[in-house]
Amino acid sequence: MTIQEIREYLGRFFDAVELVGDADRPITAPAKIEAAQQGEVSFIANEKYIRFLATTQASLVIVHRSVCVDEFLQTTSFLKVGDPYSAFVFLLQKFAKPRTIAKKGIAASAVIGEGVSIGEGVSIGEFVVIGDRCSIGRNSVIGPHTVLLDDVTLGEDVTLFARVTLYDGSRLGNRVVIHSGSVIGADGFGFAPQRDGSYVKIPQMGIVEIGDDVEIGANATIDRATMGSTVIGRGAKIDNLVQVAHNCRIGEDTVIAAQAGISGSVTIGRQCMVGGQAGFAGHLELADRIQVAAQAGISKSFLQPGIALRGYPAQPMRDQLKHEAMLRNLGAMKAKLDLLEATLKERHAE
Amino acid sequence: MTIQEIREYLGRFFDAVELVGDADRPITAPAKIEAAQQGEVSFIANEKYIRFLATTQASLVIVHRSVCVDEFLQTTSFLKVGDPYSAFVFLLQKFAKPRTIAKKGIAASAVIGEGVSIGEGVSIGEFVVIGDRCSIGRNSVIGPHTVLLDDVTLGEDVTLFARVTLYDGSRLGNRVVIHSGSVIGADGFGFAPQRDGSYVKIPQMGIVEIGDDVEIGANATIDRATMGSTVIGRGAKIDNLVQVAHNCRIGEDTVIAAQAGISGSVTIGRQCMVGGQAGFAGHLELADRIQVAAQAGISKSFLQPGIALRGYPAQPMRDQLKHEAMLRNLGAMKAKLDLLEATLKERHAE
Amino acid sequence: MTIQEIREYLGRFFDAVELVGDADRPITAPAKIEAAQQGEVSFIANEKYIRFLATTQASLVIVHRSVCVDEFLQTTSFLKVGDPYSAFVFLLQKFAKPRTIAKKGIAASAVIGEGVSIGEGVSIGEFVVIGDRCSIGRNSVIGPHTVLLDDVTLGEDVTLFARVTLYDGSRLGNRVVIHSGSVIGADGFGFAPQRDGSYVKIPQMGIVEIGDDVEIGANATIDRATMGSTVIGRGAKIDNLVQVAHNCRIGEDTVIAAQAGISGSVTIGRQCMVGGQAGFAGHLELADRIQVAAQAGISKSFLQPGIALRGYPAQPMRDQLKHEAMLRNLGAMKAKLDLLEATLKERHAE
Repeated sequence: MTIQEIREYLGRFFDAVELVGDADRPITAPAKIEAAQQGEVSFIANEKYIRFLATTQASLVIVHRSVCVDEFLQTTSFLKVGDPYSAFVFLLQKFAKPRTIAKKGIAASAVIGEGVSIGEGVSIGEFVVIGDRCSIGRNSVIGPHTVLLDDVTLGEDVTLFARVTLYDGSRLGNRVVIHSGSVIGADGFGFAPQRDGSYVKIPQMGIVEIGDDVEIGANATIDRATMGSTVIGRGAKIDNLVQVAHNCRIGEDTVIAAQAGISGSVTIGRQCMVGGQAGFAGHLELADRIQVAAQAGISKSFLQPGIALRGYPAQPMRDQLKHEAMLRNLGAMKAKLDLLEATLKERHAE
Repeated sequence: MTIQEIREYLGRFFDAVELVGDADRPITAPAKIEAAQQGEVSFIANEKYIRFLATTQASLVIVHRSVCVDEFLQTTSFLKVGDPYSAFVFLLQKFAKPRTIAKKGIAASAVIGEGVSIGEGVSIGEFVVIGDRCSIGRNSVIGPHTVLLDDVTLGEDVTLFARVTLYDGSRLGNRVVIHSGSVIGADGFGFAPQRDGSYVKIPQMGIVEIGDDVEIGANATIDRATMGSTVIGRGAKIDNLVQVAHNCRIGEDTVIAAQAGISGSVTIGRQCMVGGQAGFAGHLELADRIQVAAQAGISKSFLQPGIALRGYPAQPMRDQLKHEAMLRNLGAMKAKLDLLEATLKERHAE
Repeated sequence: MTIQEIREYLGRFFDAVELVGDADRPITAPAKIEAAQQGEVSFIANEKYIRFLATTQASLVIVHRSVCVDEFLQTTSFLKVGDPYSAFVFLLQKFAKPRTIAKKGIAASAVIGEGVSIGEGVSIGEFVVIGDRCSIGRNSVIGPHTVLLDDVTLGEDVTLFARVTLYDGSRLGNRVVIHSGSVIGADGFGFAPQRDGSYVKIPQMGIVEIGDDVEIGANATIDRATMGSTVIGRGAKIDNLVQVAHNCRIGEDTVIAAQAGISGSVTIGRQCMVGGQAGFAGHLELADRIQVAAQAGISKSFLQPGIALRGYPAQPMRDQLKHEAMLRNLGAMKAKLDLLEATLKERHAE
C-alpha cells in the first residue's frame, strides 16, 4: 500500500486528511513510534511522544494537524488529521491479516445434533460439538473444540474462538465475538440453605441472551438466569476472567475490565465503564455512563447517571478523593493533636 | 400440572400447605412475580414484593400463611405455607426440564484408557478422554470434551459438564457436579528459590479429594496437594473462577462465592460462607460457620466459630464497622481539632 | 531406595550430608512429618515442627545439622544437612512418578495442519489441533484437547497440559509448562470509543512471547500485544487465573500469584514477587526485585529496586504499615481529642 492509498482509505472515514511529504513510498506494516522501521507507519496522539519524531525510522507518521513536521520531512512523510488515534485504529484494520479460526465449511470431525440449522458461509472447526435444535447464522465461525449444548441460537457473523462453551438455550446476536475458554450459561450460584446446614440446589432454568456486537474475552463466565434471562446488552465489551452472575443485566456499550465480578441480579446501565477487579454486591443498580474505578467495591445502588465511583465501599469520586486526602493527612492531624495536648498541659502548669 | 397436584407435591416436603382458590387450573411454568403470565406459578417470600399481588398475571402464587389474599382471588389462586421460598425451590425442581449433557452410553468418539471401570447407566460425551485405571460410578454423566488423566475416581451420579479437566489421581464422591472449564488437580504453585534468583519446581505429588454433593462452578481451579490431599468437604459449594490452592481443606457445607482466592494450606471450617473476591493468606485456619465479607483480606487465623469478618486486613464485623464509622467521621474529627486549635490560640491572645 | 542411596543422591547437590542411624532401611515415599508412616521420609525445616520428632513414624527425617536427634534413633534415621527444605525438594523430584499427559507419538485423532514441523520424541495427545506452519520442538508433550492456531512455535521439552489454547503466532521457549485451561494470545482488550458511545475494535496484531523455563498455571490468560509482543521473561512463574493484558513485559524469574491482574502495557522487572489478587493500573513500571503484597493496588510506577509495596493505593511497606498503625490508632486519637475538648470547656467554665 502506498502512502497515497492510505490517504485515500482514511479519507473515506475522516475529513481533511492532509499529506505532507512523499505520496509514493510503499508502506508494509504498522508499528509503535519508538519501534517503527523504514517502510512502516506509526502515529502520535499524545504530545509527549512528539520527541520521537527526531529519531523514528517510520516512513509515515499520522499526527494531529497542529503538529509542525517540517524539519522531519527528509526521512518521513506525514498524514495530518483531526484524530490521529482513531485514524490509526482504522488503518490497523486495513493491515490486520485474516486469521484462520476454522476453515470454511464443516470439519469432518465435528458432531452436529438433530434439527440444527446452519446458515450459508459458516465455518465449523475440528471437534466442535453442536447440540440438538441449534441455529447458526450466516458466515459465523466456530473454532475447534467449542461446544454448544442444545437449543443454542447464534446470529450472523458470530465468531467463537477455540474451546468456548455455550450452555443450552443461550442466544447470541449478530457479530458477537467470544474468546477461548469462556463459559456462557452455566448454572447460577443458587442454593437454598436447609436447617441442618446443608443446601438444596435451586434449579437454574433461565438462559443467557447476548446482544449484537458484544465481545467477550478469554475464560470469562456468564451464568444463566434462575428464571428468565441474564442479558448482555448490544455492544458491551467484557474482558478476560470477568464473572457475571445470574439474572444480571449489562447495558448497551458498557465496558467491563478483566477480573471484575458482578453478583446476582445486578443491573448496570448503558455506556458504563467498570475497572479491573471491581466487585458488585448483589441486587443493586447502576445508572447510565457511570465509571467504576479498578478494585472498587460497589455495595449499594447509584442512580445518578455519569458519576464516577471509587473505593471500598465505593462512593462518588469527589467524596472518595477527599476521604483519601484526609487519610493521607492523618499524620499531620496526629501531630497537631499532640501539640495541642502539650500546649494545654504547659499552660495548666503555668 | 394442576394446582391440586402442586399442592400434593409440596405436601410431601412441607406441613400444612393450604390452598385458597381454584384447585383445577393447569400450571405450565414458574416465573418471577413481576413477569409471570396466566398459567404460571410464582412466589412471594419478601414483604416488599406483596405490592405485586395487585398486578401479577400469575395463576398461582405461593405465599406465607400470614398473607391476606382475599382481594386477589378472582384471578389468582394461592398456596399458603410456612416457608414460601423453599416451597418454590422444590417446585422449580419439578418444572426443570431434563438437560442433555451427554447422550446415554459411550460416544463413539470417546477415547477410554486401559483398565477403566465404568458403572451402569453412565453417559460419556463426544471426544471425552479417559486415562488409564479410571473408575466411573453408576449413572455418572461426563460432558463432551472433558478430560480425565490417569487414575481418576468418580462416585455415582456425578455430573461433569463439557470441557472439565481432572488431573491424575483426583477422587470425587457421589453426586458431585462440576461446571465447564474447571480444572481439578493442577500442580500447586510451589517453587523453591535458588541463590541465583531462579526457582526449582517442587514436585506436586498429592491429589485432590472432593466429597459427596459438592458443586463447583465454571472455570474454577483447585490445585493438587504437594503431598497428601487438597480436600473439598461434603456438600461444599464453590462458585465460578474461585482459586483453591494446594493443601487446602474446605469444610463440609461451606460456600465460596465467585473469584475468591484461598492460598496454600488454608483450613476452612464447616458451614462457612466466603464472599466474592475475598482473599486468604496462606497457612491459616478458620473455625466453623464463619462468614467472610466480599473482597475481605484474611491475613490470620480466626478460631471462634460463627463470627463474621470484613475489611482488609479483615477483623470481626463489629470492630470493622466501628472502624469504618470512625473513618467516615474523620472530617468531623478534623473540624473539631481545628476548632480547638483556634480556641486555644484565641485564648492565648486574650 | 535405601537411606544410603538417598544420602548419595543428595550428596550430588549438597555438601556434607551426614547420616545418623541405619543406612540400609528401604524408603518408599515422602510424606509430611505429622502424617509419615514407617518406610517414609520426611523433613523438618522449621523449629516449631521439631516437636513432631517424638511421635513421627517416619523411617527417615531430613533435619538441619544443628538438630539434636539422639533420643529418636531407635525408630528413626536422620540425614543432617545445611538446608533441609531444599534437600527435601530435590528428594521429591526423585520420588515423583512420571505422569502421562499424552502417550508417545502422535495420537491418531490429532489434526495437524500444513507445513508443521515436529521434532523427535514429541507426544501429541488425543484431539489435539495444530494449525498451519506450527513448529514443535524436540520431546515436547501436548496434552489432549490442546489447540494451537496457526504459526505457533514451541521450543524443546515444552509441556502443555490438556485443554490449553495458543492463539496464532505465539512463541514459547524451551521447557515451558502450561496447565490446563490457560489461554495464550487472545486479543487484548482494546476498543476505540466513538462519538455515539459505541466502540470500534482495535485490531490486536501482535503476539505473545514466552521465555525458557516459564510455568503458567491453570485458567490463566495472557493477551497478545496490539503491535509487537507481550513478553513473559525467562523463568517467570504465573499462577492460576492470573490476567496479563496486552503489551505487558514480565521480567525474568518474576513470580505472580493467583488471580493477580496486570493491566495493559505494564512492565515488571526481574525477580519480582506479586501477591495473589494484586492489581496493576495500566502503563506503569516496576523495578527489579519488588515485592507486591496480596490484594495491593499498584496505581503508579515504582522504580527503586527491591522495595516492598502494600495497600490501596499501594505504597512502600514502611509507609503503609505506619499508615495502618495510625488507622488502628484512630480510636485513641478520637478519645484524646474528646478529652482535650472537655478540658478546654471545663477551664473556660472555671
